[in-house]
Amino acid sequence: MKRREFIKGAAVAGAAAAASTVISAPALSQGRKEWIVASSFGKAGILGRHLDAFADFVTAATGGELSMKVFHAGELVGAFENFDAVESGTAQMGLGAPYYWAGKSNAISFIAAMPFGLNAQEQNAWFYYAGGIETADKIYNQFGMKFFPMGNTGNQMGGWYNREINTIEDFQGLKFRMPGHGGEVLKTFGVNVVLLPGGEVLSSLASGAIDGTEWIGPAADMGFGLYKAAKYYYFPGWHEPATVLDGFINLDAWNALTDSQRAVIERGAAATNMLMLSEFQARNDAALQALINEHKVDLRKYPDAVLNQIGARAGEVLQDIASRDALSKSTFEAIVKFRRTALRWTNTSEGAFAKARALPFKFPG
Amino acid sequence: MKRREFIKGAAVAGAAAAASTVISAPALSQGRKEWIVASSFGKAGILGRHLDAFADFVTAATGGELSMKVFHAGELVGAFENFDAVESGTAQMGLGAPYYWAGKSNAISFIAAMPFGLNAQEQNAWFYYAGGIETADKIYNQFGMKFFPMGNTGNQMGGWYNREINTIEDFQGLKFRMPGHGGEVLKTFGVNVVLLPGGEVLSSLASGAIDGTEWIGPAADMGFGLYKAAKYYYFPGWHEPATVLDGFINLDAWNALTDSQRAVIERGAAATNMLMLSEFQARNDAALQALINEHKVDLRKYPDAVLNQIGARAGEVLQDIASRDALSKSTFEAIVKFRRTALRWTNTSEGAFAKARALPFKFPG
Repeated sequence: MKRREFIKGAAVAGAAAAASTVISAPALSQGRKEWIVASSFGKAGILGRHLDAFADFVTAATGGELSMKVFHAGELVGAFENFDAVESGTAQMGLGAPYYWAGKSNAISFIAAMPFGLNAQEQNAWFYYAGGIETADKIYNQFGMKFFPMGNTGNQMGGWYNREINTIEDFQGLKFRMPGHGGEVLKTFGVNVVLLPGGEVLSSLASGAIDGTEWIGPAADMGFGLYKAAKYYYFPGWHEPATVLDGFINLDAWNALTDSQRAVIERGAAATNMLMLSEFQARNDAALQALINEHKVDLRKYPDAVLNQIGARAGEVLQDIASRDALSKSTFEAIVKFRRTALRWTNTSEGAFAKARALPFKFPG
Repeated sequence: MKRREFIKGAAVAGAAAAASTVISAPALSQGRKEWIVASSFGKAGILGRHLDAFADFVTAATGGELSMKVFHAGELVGAFENFDAVESGTAQMGLGAPYYWAGKSNAISFIAAMPFGLNAQEQNAWFYYAGGIETADKIYNQFGMKFFPMGNTGNQMGGWYNREINTIEDFQGLKFRMPGHGGEVLKTFGVNVVLLPGGEVLSSLASGAIDGTEWIGPAADMGFGLYKAAKYYYFPGWHEPATVLDGFINLDAWNALTDSQRAVIERGAAATNMLMLSEFQARNDAALQALINEHKVDLRKYPDAVLNQIGARAGEVLQDIASRDALSKSTFEAIVKFRRTALRWTNTSEGAFAKARALPFKFPG
């Protein structure tokens, strides 16, 4: 069953690639479809608003022939139950983050973010033009689903701490909330890594039950109120250089669409990817300045010696996680292969330009 | 007339913003529309292929109710005549680069790229969530048009040279092809800035009529064959930190669309923006390695002292260009205001992460 769906999914992916060159008959003749879209996120935040806009776009662009009704976290199923809902066909589509499904697949977290891995621009180059979507689909097809990158937080912050991090020894005994591969790396330095639902993070930090937590970045973290319970705000987010949101679609539902409906979802998801990342980038500076100036947060950079030790350990931990099964191994190898080439280009382009822009010359503004 | 169109355009922009929340009646009832889309670029390159895919998407997504026929450079009008064609209504839409229209508007080049200005991710943050599209529309509305960012080259290379650049004095007397504001900056260092159509660049370089030229980046430059006539390939592209392609639409044609057709164009253009940038990022490293290893190109970084002197001069030259009229001034001020905040965030996020990733630790791959 799983294997048949995988083969069917692969054929569909080929058809979808060709879809944008085909002019379909008007959708009216195909019959109306109503999709349930289940989200891991709340309605009010940046992620929830972008999902609503995507669903409204698909509904409008298809003239209502494919209408999407969004259920935000907790409205239909719990925040982390939407993957099951889409696999079973209760919902046709979901939005989450790939590492939320780590309990189902050892390989899937690599799709979300990788400590010391790709930044957002590099991730998107990999997804769209270097085989990344196909690599992800090998994982999602196992669950009868198709994957689309559907948003990105950009580079995250390193996290909130109630203790200074001056040497690698300062991690020893720290109680810290960090999900995903970043947490696996910190465990090896003696961190007591805690997993907590979002609703308990602030109170746990305030009570001293945890010494710190990572979340997203200034725009999201400020609304979450973490500055009320932690003093130090560390950067950079080595653990999540950029984090991908996953749009996942039930393959039976996907196969029942017309070519033009598939194209609307495919390009609509790419537009959401662009717009969500842009919104985080546009809002983060003002939020960070408010955290520093109004809320008296102490902004700190992880010392280079600490980052260098974490970087070396991250490579070992990731390689160990990747060695657990063939799909994890091939996924990890695809990413690190692209990473090598992407770094070389980024260093010659964006990296060298960033250094040039930081030279001491005076510039208007 | 121009002013009336501007006011009408502003009202339409408001309606378009609301469009994605409205479910339109099926497009069939609105009557079919056929648009002519005129491009500044050839059919075969990355830019031409992305425009074809965009037009096919709009045609398919609207079930042919809004069909787009693309005319690449020279097929209907010349490469730089499409702006006039869209202004006059001969074509409904065009794709080019904002600085191609510098002869019509002193302000418009700022929308394309700015020496030592924003990188691609920062440009998109500005366009979509910090007033950039509205700022650009104040310029495009003067010509009865609406603007969309519809692609980005990412950070360009500094250019091809037949002489080494070791000090700022090495620019004296150099015959160099560099359009836009970068060329204006180099002129002040004694460069004889030459403007040449693409078809004459390689032969002029080979004959010694010019000493060098900038083009785009490795993936585009390799196909163009510039390595055959120039030895040194300099980085970074301080003159075009990232270059925006402009989708421009005749306002009368835009006003005649349904809400859902406008949404298809708006999100379709955002998807093209994401996909084109991703393709350049994915292809540039392999092209650069081939240039170095197969074509024996000598990759060189501009010395920091040279970049620092160019940076200081760039600020003065840009301020002078911006002072020529009110619209140029307000456009420039909007960009440099956003630049200040964007740099602060980029330095704390992507910039600090890039430095952490470049530490000497060993990593797989």
